[in-house]
Amino acid sequence: MKPSASWLERRAAHSPDRVALVTEGRAIRYAELDARAAALASRMRALGVREGDAVAILLRNSAAFAELLHAVDRCRAVAVPLNVRLTVRDLASRLRDCRARHLVHGADDLAKPAEAACLEARGVGRLVIAGATLECVDRGRDEPDGIDLGDALAVLYTSGTTGDPKGALLTRSNFSASASASALHQGAVPTDRWLVCMPLFHVGGLSILTRSVLQGSAAVIHERFDPEAVDASLDADAITIASLAPTMLDRLLAVRGDRPAPTTLRCVLLGGGPAPLTLLERARDLGFPIAPTYGLTEATSQVATRLLDDNHSPLDAGLAPLPGIDVRIAVADEAQPGGAPGEAGEILVRGPIVTPGYANRDDASEAALRGGWLHTGDIGCLDAGGRLRVLDRRSDLIVSGGENVYPAEIETVLAEHPAVIEAAVAAVADAEFGARPAAWIVVRDPAPGAAELEAFCRKHLAGYKIPVAFRCVESLPRNAAGKLLRRRLGQGEDGSASLEGAAEPQPGSA
Amino acid sequence: MKPSASWLERRAAHSPDRVALVTEGRAIRYAELDARAAALASRMRALGVREGDAVAILLRNSAAFAELLHAVDRCRAVAVPLNVRLTVRDLASRLRDCRARHLVHGADDLAKPAEAACLEARGVGRLVIAGATLECVDRGRDEPDGIDLGDALAVLYTSGTTGDPKGALLTRSNFSASASASALHQGAVPTDRWLVCMPLFHVGGLSILTRSVLQGSAAVIHERFDPEAVDASLDADAITIASLAPTMLDRLLAVRGDRPAPTTLRCVLLGGGPAPLTLLERARDLGFPIAPTYGLTEATSQVATRLLDDNHSPLDAGLAPLPGIDVRIAVADEAQPGGAPGEAGEILVRGPIVTPGYANRDDASEAALRGGWLHTGDIGCLDAGGRLRVLDRRSDLIVSGGENVYPAEIETVLAEHPAVIEAAVAAVADAEFGARPAAWIVVRDPAPGAAELEAFCRKHLAGYKIPVAFRCVESLPRNAAGKLLRRRLGQGEDGSASLEGAAEPQPGSA
Repeated sequence: MKPSASWLERRAAHSPDRVALVTEGRAIRYAELDARAAALASRMRALGVREGDAVAILLRNSAAFAELLHAVDRCRAVAVPLNVRLTVRDLASRLRDCRARHLVHGADDLAKPAEAACLEARGVGRLVIAGATLECVDRGRDEPDGIDLGDALAVLYTSGTTGDPKGALLTRSNFSASASASALHQGAVPTDRWLVCMPLFHVGGLSILTRSVLQGSAAVIHERFDPEAVDASLDADAITIASLAPTMLDRLLAVRGDRPAPTTLRCVLLGGGPAPLTLLERARDLGFPIAPTYGLTEATSQVATRLLDDNHSPLDAGLAPLPGIDVRIAVADEAQPGGAPGEAGEILVRGPIVTPGYANRDDASEAALRGGWLHTGDIGCLDAGGRLRVLDRRSDLIVSGGENVYPAEIETVLAEHPAVIEAAVAAVADAEFGARPAAWIVVRDPAPGAAELEAFCRKHLAGYKIPVAFRCVESLPRNAAGKLLRRRLGQGEDGSASLEGAAEPQPGSA
Repeated sequence: MKPSASWLERRAAHSPDRVALVTEGRAIRYAELDARAAALASRMRALGVREGDAVAILLRNSAAFAELLHAVDRCRAVAVPLNVRLTVRDLASRLRDCRARHLVHGADDLAKPAEAACLEARGVGRLVIAGATLECVDRGRDEPDGIDLGDALAVLYTSGTTGDPKGALLTRSNFSASASASALHQGAVPTDRWLVCMPLFHVGGLSILTRSVLQGSAAVIHERFDPEAVDASLDADAITIASLAPTMLDRLLAVRGDRPAPTTLRCVLLGGGPAPLTLLERARDLGFPIAPTYGLTEATSQVATRLLDDNHSPLDAGLAPLPGIDVRIAVADEAQPGGAPGEAGEILVRGPIVTPGYANRDDASEAALRGGWLHTGDIGCLDAGGRLRVLDRRSDLIVSGGENVYPAEIETVLAEHPAVIEAAVAAVADAEFGARPAAWIVVRDPAPGAAELEAFCRKHLAGYKIPVAFRCVESLPRNAAGKLLRRRLGQGEDGSASLEGAAEPQPGSA
């Protein structure tokens, strides 16, 4: 075996019999995964995939996705996993942006949008994977006109809650540093079984594949988040770690009722948005080891996670940066070493998990990485011990009469109302204050009236934070990883939120 | 907390209540360890310790040693732990070699040699530590005439089984990479309790201190290896990992008798020399999870370790290189990519755990690190899966009539004889073959005769490997980490082994 062998080749050579993946009740051992990835890589090369090529992937969570990722790694090509929910237009814009030479998809309902997107993007070849076979259905361009993606293993388009999607380059070294830091932080043992119900095209899912091969443990892959299936898997697959978004946890607990957490489960990384305190308390009371986590694509996922034995911070705060990762808060004057404890500002991150930049976007890369720190666009503060409290996304901040209003704070208060299932807050224009918060809520029977909700907020929030309006909706706009997309609230013409088209809550009906 | 905070400061901020150290039955939590290290660092600065200073340490294993290491780290100085068994002359030569400005010792029996060595080395100040107090008893030189130790955290003198001792620089980044790779390899959880009975002045002990602070687990420190104390500690301290040399394991098993391994114990890293197969089998049969390990000072200890669930390699072989660490074998032509599977040659190591070089020894550093690979001076081979089998130290290789004879192979065969407690093999001059192997043995009653030993060897070894002589000794020369010092066998005038002064074994007496 060459020193340059891939992570999977090494893992398969050293631990051939360990379980690598579990999907649809079937276990795939490292030797088998490696053999399948090797065969796939050899087929890809025969079909024209070259070192450094951007290979886009349009697949749902599956063993095939994992095999393909390792095959791309073996070809020294670059994986570009795409969100399976994207429109043809959005798929095409990403294919163009990273100058993809190939798109791999399955012989399923995604074949159609894949074909249309490749047609629109021009010059992108299509490879269709079905079982162990990989066929070329459209040849792409032949000239090597790709852009230089450096030593990236993957390009991940940021989840797109703000502005134009940008493709973050994530190198092998980023993924390896993430696996190490994560292992040092919450521990890792070869017998770990990590539940993946996040999409694999999202960093929160993808990084579990790279971690498990480096840590020599197993990934238990679900095609999607289905609360009943996840509930059953926790016990049947003896899950030890899981990555969930707060809404997933909420739905999981609804299914489980009063059953306590399985004893095998040692850590639930909860990320992708703020979690209501009541949810955290409910989970804790059932024995779920919940570790609220802050992470982002540009930092290969996990940046800071509340330690399970932290008895000093509130359940919903006190996220400790991973070993080797620095977090600081940029206050008004960025040259300053960081805000005083408790002072809010933009969260900056430094360390080997941080992306070297965005594909083909030198300006955006320089802006995001100025001064050697990743500027996350999220707002938070540190306590005296360096633990992080995440407040909100900077772009969602509401400045109302000169006061900073964080939608997440209002949302978590609303979510604690017994009749509110979930809530989203965004700014609406206000003649006097410039902007004021308004709330979109999903309620259950008996539905509360606006007056009751206002009174409830008044008990927990300062006056200027109380929503000027409450609107009932069927569901809230979220991305595939469960992250709230506030800018889609009310679908205002100019992108700002509007109160049109949603009903004001009436007492007693949902 | 600043981003530049030390590992201990961060750990104490995030996990103040976790146990950091256990010594003499007393647990010290991270908050307490940090407070003591901070107070010590502040005292050291007041006594003249400056950034970049080489601070030698002459202490036995203790909480004070760990506190001091972290205090030196906080001062951004460089720790130079010295072997407490060294002669004054050897101590002085090391103090001179690294241009130590300070030597820290206790108010114990080591104070005398410390004083004498500082006197001999000239210009080295002495700091005496006793409990929480640190006093200056001799001021050292004031002019900053130290050598540049780069960003080293420690300078560790190689265990000195060959040639002149050289001080390997080990950086913070080396220790951090070692902690990560080790965690990925055999797993690490915050509840780990790692037994340290190796000397802390040896990399095998010291790296446990840095690992535990990075992994957030506890180090259970024994002043020395005492089989009864270690036996008791396994149960009483709920040890999960231990680092032992084969002779330590042998003595531990002798004390334990037939008692099975404690259920908490999940891994025993066995390093510092080859282990007889019978010892490994005996330990396995009692349920000890033995992981034979190859490591060396210049690679911050652990390089390759047999995986506990490896069902494909013999118990005494098949060491898997740690994730991110490359191992290759240099055969006759070093430019070649590596020997064929099974072909023996010098073991080369590459990766973030490898020292940047020796203090003040550019030539030796360049020689050891030529071509970007650490040349270990050890001989081994790789199997087809890249697993390492360590054969011996190159300097101990016996070339007999053109054949390579590895002393370790003969020693492990001899150690399997029921009457042989331990064995050492070295070359003696031979008119016909140039050199031939001879054996020094420690025996138990009833002692075997030379003829019986020869017959025993003949069953397991090729003819040219059979020792030409067997000599009984009381004990074998070993360094503090339990590594055999073959060049001291027979104390030949010219450094080569001599058969004088030891008795030939007589049947029936020990």
